[in-house]
Amino acid sequence: MGKQAKTAIEPTREDNYPEWYQEVIKASDMAEASPVRGCMVIKPWGYALWENIVRALDDMFKTTGVKNAYFPLFIPINFLEKEAAHVEGFAKECAVVTHHRLEQNEDGRLVPAGKLTEPLIVRPTSETIIGDSFSKWVKSYRDLPVLINQWANVVRWEMRTRIFLRTSEFLWQEGHTVHATSEEAMDRTRMMLEVYRKMAEEYLAMPVITGEKSESEKFPGAENTLCIEAMMQDRKALQAGTSHFLGQNFARASNIKFQSEKETEEYGWTTSFGASTRLIGGLVMTHSDDDGVVLPPRVASAHAVLMPIVRKEKDRQMVMDYTHDLADRLRQISYYGYPLRVEIDDRDTGGARNWEWIKKGIPLRVEIGPKDIASDSVFVGRRDKAPKDKFSMKKEAFADEICGILDEIQKNLYARALAFQKAHTRKIDDKNRFDAFFTPENKERPEIHGGFALSHWCGEAACEKAIKDRLNVTIRCIPHHLPAQQHPEESGVCIECGKASRQRVVFAKAY
Amino acid sequence: MGKQAKTAIEPTREDNYPEWYQEVIKASDMAEASPVRGCMVIKPWGYALWENIVRALDDMFKTTGVKNAYFPLFIPINFLEKEAAHVEGFAKECAVVTHHRLEQNEDGRLVPAGKLTEPLIVRPTSETIIGDSFSKWVKSYRDLPVLINQWANVVRWEMRTRIFLRTSEFLWQEGHTVHATSEEAMDRTRMMLEVYRKMAEEYLAMPVITGEKSESEKFPGAENTLCIEAMMQDRKALQAGTSHFLGQNFARASNIKFQSEKETEEYGWTTSFGASTRLIGGLVMTHSDDDGVVLPPRVASAHAVLMPIVRKEKDRQMVMDYTHDLADRLRQISYYGYPLRVEIDDRDTGGARNWEWIKKGIPLRVEIGPKDIASDSVFVGRRDKAPKDKFSMKKEAFADEICGILDEIQKNLYARALAFQKAHTRKIDDKNRFDAFFTPENKERPEIHGGFALSHWCGEAACEKAIKDRLNVTIRCIPHHLPAQQHPEESGVCIECGKASRQRVVFAKAY
Repeated sequence: MGKQAKTAIEPTREDNYPEWYQEVIKASDMAEASPVRGCMVIKPWGYALWENIVRALDDMFKTTGVKNAYFPLFIPINFLEKEAAHVEGFAKECAVVTHHRLEQNEDGRLVPAGKLTEPLIVRPTSETIIGDSFSKWVKSYRDLPVLINQWANVVRWEMRTRIFLRTSEFLWQEGHTVHATSEEAMDRTRMMLEVYRKMAEEYLAMPVITGEKSESEKFPGAENTLCIEAMMQDRKALQAGTSHFLGQNFARASNIKFQSEKETEEYGWTTSFGASTRLIGGLVMTHSDDDGVVLPPRVASAHAVLMPIVRKEKDRQMVMDYTHDLADRLRQISYYGYPLRVEIDDRDTGGARNWEWIKKGIPLRVEIGPKDIASDSVFVGRRDKAPKDKFSMKKEAFADEICGILDEIQKNLYARALAFQKAHTRKIDDKNRFDAFFTPENKERPEIHGGFALSHWCGEAACEKAIKDRLNVTIRCIPHHLPAQQHPEESGVCIECGKASRQRVVFAKAY
Repeated sequence: MGKQAKTAIEPTREDNYPEWYQEVIKASDMAEASPVRGCMVIKPWGYALWENIVRALDDMFKTTGVKNAYFPLFIPINFLEKEAAHVEGFAKECAVVTHHRLEQNEDGRLVPAGKLTEPLIVRPTSETIIGDSFSKWVKSYRDLPVLINQWANVVRWEMRTRIFLRTSEFLWQEGHTVHATSEEAMDRTRMMLEVYRKMAEEYLAMPVITGEKSESEKFPGAENTLCIEAMMQDRKALQAGTSHFLGQNFARASNIKFQSEKETEEYGWTTSFGASTRLIGGLVMTHSDDDGVVLPPRVASAHAVLMPIVRKEKDRQMVMDYTHDLADRLRQISYYGYPLRVEIDDRDTGGARNWEWIKKGIPLRVEIGPKDIASDSVFVGRRDKAPKDKFSMKKEAFADEICGILDEIQKNLYARALAFQKAHTRKIDDKNRFDAFFTPENKERPEIHGGFALSHWCGEAACEKAIKDRLNVTIRCIPHHLPAQQHPEESGVCIECGKASRQRVVFAKAY
């Protein structure tokens, strides 16, 4: 057997992780590059996954009192100038609209016309434009809190793009809230981080470390940025959601003032929080293997595909009827409040068909042929097991147990990812070991390194910068500020300068 | 009593319809103008309505096999040049992105930098960019049909904007399909029109006339445009959804070819169909009255608001408990597959609170005070009745009957709107009467005219244009092509030129 027969995806993760990622996405039919630089086309299999993520997040937001709204795509340039740190962070690479018409020139080509007095930018994030609305909505403490979320597309003109992970246009949600006190705003910042943690761990089966960003890694203009960080299979970190405590900075910039209960005039305390289609990239890089994508059942685009096997034409009607009956039966079953998502693939392409669904990552593949029907059984393949590891089940038992099987797959994927994260996370207190941890052993595979280092840091930006410059390693988060990570404060010495440190932080290479 | 006391909205529909519309929207807190010219902010009360419309449409699309996907926001200029009629229609007023960076000039102001080699436009509609993907997806008849929908924002640089009805940016869905045959594509075009009819009539309680557009009113590049047209309370028509049969025009422009079963190479037959946040404007103008918005229960942002009445502090706990218990009870009830949407408004603002909810158009207002509780009752106001027409009901009976009451409101709103449409639709065969029908009696209220005229038309664009130039009246649709409107073909003479005509068409002023 040639090498191709061993795995469905070439190259493997081991051979070339970045290329493996591109190939896995391609083979799954989730998304593709578009003719517009840096923008992607999200195909139905990828978009269905996004719809499930959206629904889960949206439900969680609403449970905490957040309501959805929609604000303009365009932001006047002068809005960006209001918050100094924000300009620095977002004004650099963005799409600028300068004209509002096209005209045909002498050659019949279309050219821009109707120059705008003031150019507009396509929103890279909406703090400033939403802040403008909030300044009108908020007058008194009785109007607070304001708890708003927006599902939208945003644009950041990225130079190097990678599908789902970093694209010029992406889909996301951005929450924006205003509160009467600093404490309440900080509580909301933590509450939303907990929503992201839950989303990542319980829905995407992606274990994360929650924590706080260092000064240099914060959101431009924020007082405090909380984040969830996941470990990908190349041991790099992926920031998968951020929740920002903005203090009164944006309220001052946007003039969000309210009359307090004591009748004094105060600036509001604001927060913002966002997660994006990047979550899909994280999910793919967490679970997928050398045979393709592996989708966690809670968000999978579909839960099961039924594949009728018809070898003799005389069996066709019988097999098809049996298949459709089973599909109908399964679609009546509720899985976490929504009907099971079941596909029927009746193409006569044999093994190729089976491999297509493996590459798409569907949790369950169900083959139904005349022999299975004779014993009222189905032949089931689980995506979390090896492709050839299939089993026969009575049809009734399958319908009764399918939700349990899906839960087991979900649990397995999480456990596997957590074991991987733990195996590649180390407490490191020696500078030489630290450097070695982040230095690839094999120069031909520069992406292979140690993983996450839990090491002491004195809190100085200079040490952080020195490490970044030397190793391209950054502080992903300071984990001890959050309940979930409340390990006792521990004293030690900074891995870089040797000065006293009160805390370990998470160092890693990152996407 | 002063004039203000008579109605909650000033001016009334009768006094000044366009201003009444602005005031109704404002009073409902559904949306507001934004600092970006022609773009609106959709506030939570308006966005919740949109979410319900989206869910209903999305479910219906999916039932017919359509899957969602997402394509880039930006379209390269040269894509627009591919389809000649399409250029004419859409290239004129659009947002043009010419730069991808901002830089600070000497004065510290941000200015566009990083000029793009080829400008991009922000999608006014996505036929061309989706066509490009389809040309890669479609190779063989086995790949057909392709049935795709996209939920997205689009931008058309409108000079005169009106909230929800005509805005520079709006939210919509655009469906795009490819078929192997002309018949199948035409069937799909009709099927999607039927989805829009159902949406309008069964969800928005907005009666519509379905039909086909004349040549001059078609979508640029389409062979055939089907539409639903509703009558607003100023008797003008609102086009509320369109479904286009594009023939092979866009397939040729985008090179969407497939190998047929007979192994010949053929161009695909494509369709597209769209409905937008304009539906909200239509809904408002169909049902609202001089006290504010009236929301049909099937899509209402919320179904009922509970308003505890506490006059003595000692009653507070008891009244609040009773209110929250009832809310919990009602939220367990399923209305068309989703939990009832119940708000609690516990502000102590008395009549003002009640009027706020009337203006927001919530179907049911429920007052709960100590006296009501003493008899285990609630005091209910229905938005489809006069504001003072309220009734007491036992709490248990209310919970048991609430879905029935909501259905009755839904039915009443539809019946009322249908009666209005019928009352202002006339068969007219005399040119003088036709002109009089469309001429305002009172010059101070130029919007008041007859309504829809069912008149004969010879089929000539010249007659259509003459009528448009004289009266600003257009052919809204040719109704007889569709099953729902299958009145026998009827011969007569053209209302404009007197030549033979085989059909009546719908003439109206339009939004």
